[in-house]
Amino acid sequence: AILEALHQAYQRDTTPKPAAGLRITVTAGPTREPLDPVRYLTNRSSGKMGFALAEAAQALGASVTLISGPVTLETPHGVRRVDVTTADDMLAAAQQSVQKGCDLFISSAAVADYKAASYAEHKLKKQNGEETLTLTLVKNPDIVATIAAGERRPTVVGFAAETQDVEHYALDKLTRKKLDMIVANQVGANEGFDSDDNAVTLYWQAEGGVKAHELPLQSKVSLAHALLHEILRVNAASLAPAAQ
Amino acid sequence: AILEALHQAYQRDTTPKPAAGLRITVTAGPTREPLDPVRYLTNRSSGKMGFALAEAAQALGASVTLISGPVTLETPHGVRRVDVTTADDMLAAAQQSVQKGCDLFISSAAVADYKAASYAEHKLKKQNGEETLTLTLVKNPDIVATIAAGERRPTVVGFAAETQDVEHYALDKLTRKKLDMIVANQVGANEGFDSDDNAVTLYWQAEGGVKAHELPLQSKVSLAHALLHEILRVNAASLAPAAQ
Repeated sequence: AILEALHQAYQRDTTPKPAAGLRITVTAGPTREPLDPVRYLTNRSSGKMGFALAEAAQALGASVTLISGPVTLETPHGVRRVDVTTADDMLAAAQQSVQKGCDLFISSAAVADYKAASYAEHKLKKQNGEETLTLTLVKNPDIVATIAAGERRPTVVGFAAETQDVEHYALDKLTRKKLDMIVANQVGANEGFDSDDNAVTLYWQAEGGVKAHELPLQSKVSLAHALLHEILRVNAASLAPAAQ
Repeated sequence: AILEALHQAYQRDTTPKPAAGLRITVTAGPTREPLDPVRYLTNRSSGKMGFALAEAAQALGASVTLISGPVTLETPHGVRRVDVTTADDMLAAAQQSVQKGCDLFISSAAVADYKAASYAEHKLKKQNGEETLTLTLVKNPDIVATIAAGERRPTVVGFAAETQDVEHYALDKLTRKKLDMIVANQVGANEGFDSDDNAVTLYWQAEGGVKAHELPLQSKVSLAHALLHEILRVNAASLAPAAQ
């Protein structure tokens, strides 16, 4: 155990820190949109990808803020964690983090697109006669687009988790939301969610058009490191001044 | 550690087993009602109360089946666990368990009352123009009432988690769903859900009217033992033949 600790300490000291000096904010997990004190609408998301990104960013030398929806994961060592429930909460935390100073914003959270139009203070009762219930939902704020449109704009990386036409939707999101990069993630009824592994494609605008970089199936921990290296490489010019 | 193991083994052998020979089924956790491969409607429920009941029932000598919605809890030692997602799944598992032979059915799951009228095979896309989304939900089956109305009817204990008028709703459920007992649980925006503690009141019909037994705030593990002892005591007559 002592040898192991020494080995780890040695590794810590000799590992290159390409993100040293960078302030990175990562959003992770789902958001929960309550209908009443008992019921809520949410998205499937374990938070594993976002937590792996936060951990990798910290290991690469960055100062990391992790804004997380309700998940059952341990906070990575050395990472500042902010817990939120709803998309509105997450937006507020994201804006605060950017205001405090953020060079790179990675939006990996599965934010619920819609919330209940009205929240019931007490548990909604099932009515005996009624076989159907109509729920009116309103749009949630678009967190990654709001951050990308802000005055103090960090480098912004979004995620697109789609069950079909992933590339199409990812490229649409990249341009429409004015992101610097997008991570396209094919998901299905039984893939990509609770798994420890994932495969993604990274897209970004470059001179001469959209560039793509495929990252094959691997553990989310390994994928997080690969993603960060690629993000830092492609955005070296915009991220460099902050790193000094 | 050896002394502790011996002590535990000694305790195991000398602990009274009032549930010996009984087949007990417990439902626990929330159900998840998918709207599409990504989004779902659910209830707040950690599953802790149901898992504690299953563990206590096993410790008291019963043969236990635990039907659980999506939770992040370890299966109690010696308990047969069936994992389900939706209310429809949970009903099927409950009916199968009763068909195989069940003396006592404890419904502690927070079953979603409604599910999406139609499930979208692919992720529903947020439409740019539309600020609201109308969701049509249909009623889920009433699991505890269905089991209580079945031909091979076990002793049936339900739960009523309410944010207000708990006694009123609990007594209504007890009679309307023809349950043998009901556990009334006051919950709120911030109480009774993820907590390790809980306080409940148990109601049942007896000669001369409804009887009540209050169990004050205590750990869910301790509460589970107290609840089971009371359930076994009150239903001794109907549960006795099966125990022979």
